Amino acid sequence: MNTNEDFDENLHELNLSGPDGPNASLVAKKKKRKKKKKCSTSTSTSIDPLPFEGVETILGYEFSDPRLLEEALTHPSSNQCVNYDRLEFIGDAVINWLMSKKLFLDYPELGEDRLTPLRSANVSNEKFARISVEHELYPYLRFSNESFKEQIKVFKEEIYSYPLHCNSLIKTPKFLADIFESLIGAVFMDSKHNLDTVFMRLLEPLISPEELQIHPKTELQVFCQKKGLPFNFNEDYWEQHHIINVIVDSCVVGTGYGSNKEIAQNQAAKAALDNITLIYLNPVTEATAN
Amino acid sequence: MNTNEDFDENLHELNLSGPDGPNASLVAKKKKRKKKKKCSTSTSTSIDPLPFEGVETILGYEFSDPRLLEEALTHPSSNQCVNYDRLEFIGDAVINWLMSKKLFLDYPELGEDRLTPLRSANVSNEKFARISVEHELYPYLRFSNESFKEQIKVFKEEIYSYPLHCNSLIKTPKFLADIFESLIGAVFMDSKHNLDTVFMRLLEPLISPEELQIHPKTELQVFCQKKGLPFNFNEDYWEQHHIINVIVDSCVVGTGYGSNKEIAQNQAAKAALDNITLIYLNPVTEATAN
Repeated sequence: MNTNEDFDENLHELNLSGPDGPNASLVAKKKKRKKKKKCSTSTSTSIDPLPFEGVETILGYEFSDPRLLEEALTHPSSNQCVNYDRLEFIGDAVINWLMSKKLFLDYPELGEDRLTPLRSANVSNEKFARISVEHELYPYLRFSNESFKEQIKVFKEEIYSYPLHCNSLIKTPKFLADIFESLIGAVFMDSKHNLDTVFMRLLEPLISPEELQIHPKTELQVFCQKKGLPFNFNEDYWEQHHIINVIVDSCVVGTGYGSNKEIAQNQAAKAALDNITLIYLNPVTEATAN
Repeated sequence: MNTNEDFDENLHELNLSGPDGPNASLVAKKKKRKKKKKCSTSTSTSIDPLPFEGVETILGYEFSDPRLLEEALTHPSSNQCVNYDRLEFIGDAVINWLMSKKLFLDYPELGEDRLTPLRSANVSNEKFARISVEHELYPYLRFSNESFKEQIKVFKEEIYSYPLHCNSLIKTPKFLADIFESLIGAVFMDSKHNLDTVFMRLLEPLISPEELQIHPKTELQVFCQKKGLPFNFNEDYWEQHHIINVIVDSCVVGTGYGSNKEIAQNQAAKAALDNITLIYLNPVTEATAN
């Protein structure tokens, strides 16, 4: 399981790739690059980020204008002249467009009702945040928010339990998704709006129609409607966490917790589905028990 | 003001454009076109639609494959072998992409926080439905839903009061927006995925950053926060309509009605803003009254 220690180790390892390493030409190039004037003179509270050029190796793209790379890897909290804000906007639009076209052409038998959730799963913040973690893009980010390190640690632990997609059961730190979007935006701008140079391999493996699951909340709703069971969510809030109970037929059948209401509801619905499936789909077991 | 009569008149007028009219070559071409076999043999309940070719004149694009045009103008309610469902998906993605790129390049000074609502206003269902009405695309739609005619009539009357954008104060019939999206999708597919052939002039005039208004609900929230006024929405539901009262400082200051909760809330917020602005921004008037 990935931990905070891994994160620091990654930083250390990658910082050590000196002039003889695989990034030798990029390191040499770096020296020639003129650094932009910073707006802020305040001391940054962020951890020491890796030099930008390592990202070019990960992306498989060499920038003509390195300022775009710097912009893409600067979080608004850094309080610099530029940040990734605008590049994130155009990068998100590029990925949305390329994914829409790919899914539309790859699945001629799917209607809009199946293409839309398929695209949502493949261009979700969670998917992009996973890319930032799995391809180790995040250690290159400049930021000034102490909580980010803890958020990365928690997210890395949580996705370990859900190798492909968590189906709205965990919270995604938005800045992790933003990194990937802003880098794609930077490549798009640097390549003079050439969509062919945007490397889609980082998005692989794509979630297929067969792998796409409906959210537990929707699944519970469908199940209860079919069985004619009345159900509702009972909500509570304690120490900044939502606590949700699923009540089916006047009984609590599942409980979920989360800093976000949707996640807590999906957690509760998943627990409820596991329990009521046992009760309602195994009448033999029930009869034996009686 | 446009009425039901106008709608029928449009249909009649456009049907009369015979072989000597501006669409003469398209009418001749139509005769050579082999019609697709229909899935349904049931009698359609839709009004008699105009022949497809008139749309080519409006779009300024001649289709190589007229089946795409037929597909784009067939609503799912028609119960035919194909409908506009998939073309609407790709058309929406094409417009979203082209608009994102255009706004990003046209407004280099705007951050993501202003680009996102600007794009939302320019690629909204309301905007697309207005195009279908203003460029008279809707009389070409094949459908089997009697309520559509009334929905078109109401929408035409309502947009008359809001010439540019209604700001979530009126209900948009989704099928009117779908027509435009599916036609753009059909042009994209017919032109072998060429984005240059998609004619953006139909989207003109675009809503500019200066013309972009915040929703009344958000505006009310900001106003009350600034003034330190407690406020909430009080909801009721009567004969399929939401009735929303805005309570500020324990007084009802605005009421809104709508078949849709969001619209009713915005109507109520708009009324509330009109009233509380008079009270809180004109202390002189208040003092004089006292």
